[in-house]
Amino acid sequence: MQLGLIGLGKMGGNMAERLRRGGHEVVGYDRAPGKRDVDSLEALIGALSAPRVVWVMVPAGEPTRATVKELAGLLEPGDVIVDGGNSRYTDDQVHDVMCREKGIGYVDAGVSGGVWGLENGYALMVGGTKDDVAKVQPVFDALKPPSPTDEAGQAVPGAGFVHAGPVGAGHFSKMVHNGIEYALMQAYGEGYELLAAVDLIEDVPGVVKSWTQGTVIRSWLLDLLVRALDEDPALERIRGYAEDSGEGRWTVEQAIENSVPMPTIAASLFARFSSRQDDSPTMKAVAALRNQFGGHAVRGIQAEEVERPA
Amino acid sequence: MQLGLIGLGKMGGNMAERLRRGGHEVVGYDRAPGKRDVDSLEALIGALSAPRVVWVMVPAGEPTRATVKELAGLLEPGDVIVDGGNSRYTDDQVHDVMCREKGIGYVDAGVSGGVWGLENGYALMVGGTKDDVAKVQPVFDALKPPSPTDEAGQAVPGAGFVHAGPVGAGHFSKMVHNGIEYALMQAYGEGYELLAAVDLIEDVPGVVKSWTQGTVIRSWLLDLLVRALDEDPALERIRGYAEDSGEGRWTVEQAIENSVPMPTIAASLFARFSSRQDDSPTMKAVAALRNQFGGHAVRGIQAEEVERPA
Amino acid sequence: MQLGLIGLGKMGGNMAERLRRGGHEVVGYDRAPGKRDVDSLEALIGALSAPRVVWVMVPAGEPTRATVKELAGLLEPGDVIVDGGNSRYTDDQVHDVMCREKGIGYVDAGVSGGVWGLENGYALMVGGTKDDVAKVQPVFDALKPPSPTDEAGQAVPGAGFVHAGPVGAGHFSKMVHNGIEYALMQAYGEGYELLAAVDLIEDVPGVVKSWTQGTVIRSWLLDLLVRALDEDPALERIRGYAEDSGEGRWTVEQAIENSVPMPTIAASLFARFSSRQDDSPTMKAVAALRNQFGGHAVRGIQAEEVERPA
Amino acid sequence: MQLGLIGLGKMGGNMAERLRRGGHEVVGYDRAPGKRDVDSLEALIGALSAPRVVWVMVPAGEPTRATVKELAGLLEPGDVIVDGGNSRYTDDQVHDVMCREKGIGYVDAGVSGGVWGLENGYALMVGGTKDDVAKVQPVFDALKPPSPTDEAGQAVPGAGFVHAGPVGAGHFSKMVHNGIEYALMQAYGEGYELLAAVDLIEDVPGVVKSWTQGTVIRSWLLDLLVRALDEDPALERIRGYAEDSGEGRWTVEQAIENSVPMPTIAASLFARFSSRQDDSPTMKAVAALRNQFGGHAVRGIQAEEVERPA
Repeated sequence: MQLGLIGLGKMGGNMAERLRRGGHEVVGYDRAPGKRDVDSLEALIGALSAPRVVWVMVPAGEPTRATVKELAGLLEPGDVIVDGGNSRYTDDQVHDVMCREKGIGYVDAGVSGGVWGLENGYALMVGGTKDDVAKVQPVFDALKPPSPTDEAGQAVPGAGFVHAGPVGAGHFSKMVHNGIEYALMQAYGEGYELLAAVDLIEDVPGVVKSWTQGTVIRSWLLDLLVRALDEDPALERIRGYAEDSGEGRWTVEQAIENSVPMPTIAASLFARFSSRQDDSPTMKAVAALRNQFGGHAVRGIQAEEVERPA
Repeated sequence: MQLGLIGLGKMGGNMAERLRRGGHEVVGYDRAPGKRDVDSLEALIGALSAPRVVWVMVPAGEPTRATVKELAGLLEPGDVIVDGGNSRYTDDQVHDVMCREKGIGYVDAGVSGGVWGLENGYALMVGGTKDDVAKVQPVFDALKPPSPTDEAGQAVPGAGFVHAGPVGAGHFSKMVHNGIEYALMQAYGEGYELLAAVDLIEDVPGVVKSWTQGTVIRSWLLDLLVRALDEDPALERIRGYAEDSGEGRWTVEQAIENSVPMPTIAASLFARFSSRQDDSPTMKAVAALRNQFGGHAVRGIQAEEVERPA
Repeated sequence: MQLGLIGLGKMGGNMAERLRRGGHEVVGYDRAPGKRDVDSLEALIGALSAPRVVWVMVPAGEPTRATVKELAGLLEPGDVIVDGGNSRYTDDQVHDVMCREKGIGYVDAGVSGGVWGLENGYALMVGGTKDDVAKVQPVFDALKPPSPTDEAGQAVPGAGFVHAGPVGAGHFSKMVHNGIEYALMQAYGEGYELLAAVDLIEDVPGVVKSWTQGTVIRSWLLDLLVRALDEDPALERIRGYAEDSGEGRWTVEQAIENSVPMPTIAASLFARFSSRQDDSPTMKAVAALRNQFGGHAVRGIQAEEVERPA
Repeated sequence: MQLGLIGLGKMGGNMAERLRRGGHEVVGYDRAPGKRDVDSLEALIGALSAPRVVWVMVPAGEPTRATVKELAGLLEPGDVIVDGGNSRYTDDQVHDVMCREKGIGYVDAGVSGGVWGLENGYALMVGGTKDDVAKVQPVFDALKPPSPTDEAGQAVPGAGFVHAGPVGAGHFSKMVHNGIEYALMQAYGEGYELLAAVDLIEDVPGVVKSWTQGTVIRSWLLDLLVRALDEDPALERIRGYAEDSGEGRWTVEQAIENSVPMPTIAASLFARFSSRQDDSPTMKAVAALRNQFGGHAVRGIQAEEVERPA
């Protein structure tokens, strides 16, 4: 089928390539002139036959909001906009109302797969009406990974694609995916740190590598940790500093809103915050309190001699 | 090679089977007469040519300690005992001293793989001297999973087996593996709960299944969660009650001993403790405090009218 | 001075009483006819000389928002509205803009003290411009607790009252106060639970009581815990179920927005969420995963015989 | 009564002073010659009439264990040893067995109060038999703070002293006290950090000070935080680095042994561990994983262009 694709960065560009390999016609537009097929949104729309499907693949937040708004002013009833970025699901709900008023369909798609997606396929979590999703389905089918087969060689449906619910459900699912990701990474990190902390373990990378086959904790993230340790066995060339994109924060906020206890994902988020602090105001206060225990008069005496601050 | 194997339960029995398929001679002993090849430890030892390798595969704790002690009294210098159970690594260190005094080698092996191990192989994390491990290596090679191959078809060494360090290092590595496992399970659980808490997600099992292909969080545990949801889509037939074996506790204790921050694994352990409480004494105290806010005189008035307990 | 007071529930009624004891003239209004001095907001405003100060003491959220909006339509430039409820600080900022447009001043006041406030005074955390706060200061002075004296008998300023910053700063400070409160309560609860869990401690209430004098952890909350244990030594008559008002959630949300690690306050909030669940979906998932370890074929076998789920 | 006191550091010296003010006869011994009354343990014992009470006030661990052992070899049946240090309760249980064999009584006393104890009294949590505790009671009465009085002017018993149970119960109670202390300090620290993180709060020390009167969270620790902020309003002269003595670790270990969920105390302990790390191995692993998301080929590209690591 025909698809308009806005945003031809690494992610959008690879997706265009995968779609073309799958036999689809992609008309691409980007702010930057380099790889684009058309020079404006108007030209993009003009190049597509109605009913059109236009996929937005630009950074979440203001860039996506501006693009969707502009598109909604240009498209016709029956057309469909797909937001494939990392938008917050509440943005989708605003976009959906705006599009519905004009008879335009709206679909949100959480996309996972990174640079491996071009070859391996992209996992897709999708929200929207049944009709709107159906209009995009051939594109989803081309993007998603091939279905795995079971022991009997039968294709197992459902891996790599889901229509999760109405508009917003796709990005909500991707948000939760990313929240889980935080805690998985933190869990492997904590285990790695304990291994590295004891003299008893003489081959820390070897232990991590041994876990990748036959164990309960084997995973793709564990494979990545093995790769990282292959390159830098004691992680000496990397700082323990981790940014966070919005999804982890949003996940915990949603947990709070829905009264869901979420200790490990929240702890993982907080560990990232801590990793970016030169010094911790909280621990300054704790240290100050411990100092106060000794009292002015005794500043500098041996802690052991008075009641030790605990 | 020849191996004496003590403990022919599901795990030991399957291991014996896999070893025999691999061409090894296994002499098995079990307290229960059913499947054993010999009727006593003495007979087991008599059936093996020196230097002997005897693998202990009985429950951790007292049963393992008693068996190792008895074996150490019967074996000869140059023989090797392997503890393949879930022992605490400090038990290994005691056993090692006891064995060394008699010239007997000692190797600890953390084994992962469960009922899938018979067909897929068992991941092995091993501690001991180089010489002792070498005596058991053919057995390890037969038990471990086949090496995976890289994209060029080359076998990738190191997956599924590691000689992690001196005695204790094997069980220590397995202990950390299990600690990580707690946090991974908790992380998936928290994500599942948030999905299930919102009306927006109409197909919770579908979302979980979609994650198994092409995503960052795909793993064997996630595959198991899909299986569980296939059988019971809203987990209605299962209670949120989780036992814990010792390894999670030991992992956090080791973290404390080594000053390693371990928030997600500890939180996962505490979540299991909570899951087994009919009522929480901590929360009784919190509730009692909130009641006290209102004071005796105002017991029963609308919380909203006075300062709301926060 | 003269004060209009809207909301004569337990909290507002006690505050009116304390203000009158302090020599101030209070004109009170409430939806319920019982104790009110005037029968409408219009009458309230008519009874006050300009510039007026009108204190809103009704439930946070919609009731407060509606009242402030109505007042802003009735008052004159130079008058001041005080919101003394538990509003979210972002509400204050909206109210402030609305009032400024009409030349009306706006002050937010976080009030602590509950039923003890009538006799002991109310702690006040206040936000607004210097001029607006000055107009209300005599009321604040009458409401707040008497200043404590230092060892030399000098009054110590600053305890029980603060002008924390511009509009919103008062409720923000009260919000953080309540967040801290959650973690303090949880901390005492955890300690209590550990004491109660071991046979070694024969007099749990006695231990808690001993802490109230001379220790590092003595506090007003600890005194309340002693009172609760006096009434019910094993807390048998109370369930471990704790509601939460919004402030704890808002505190964690603000922490997330400001990249502040907040592990204990978040953990305390999650403990309350857990306390209200009949069963935990997270732990259902964990339990389901542990069941899957055993595999279909071996359902029902002894866990000890296969690899124990950790 | 007569008391032998071993250890005349700041804590022991102050306790001797308070006991003498209370009319008791204290014979003091210290390794250092300066302030001691006798020059050896033998001389100390010789200076006391049977039945003797000897109080050990030396650092916990090996120094206390050595002193108790030596004393047990010198004292006579009917004498009583008191360990007033910060020993682990399991040490007490070993000491108790050793003493019982010789007919010597043993009492463990957790002591709180620091440098303020001389004037204000020391809170005491005591373990031992009824008879042994009775022999020491006059000393406990002189050390403990004066009883507070209730609103009617009646002395309230139980504040500042408890006989918590058999040997070990005193130090166990003090251990839990210190565990709670960790979480209280962390809670105040987290609240402080959030206040300090937002521009909205213009007077952070003022807010903290306002909380000391009339609020739910007022406490002695909060008073100490006010003192610290008086001296250094932005805590600029202090690093966020906090040691920990053993009690916090022991508290969490006991929680684990007794299956008690303890999220806030454990989180507080982990925050201290983190505060002492130059870099976090856990977060190195997390950062390494995030780097791997981009893959070898794309190292250095804009994160936004590919799937952003979450």
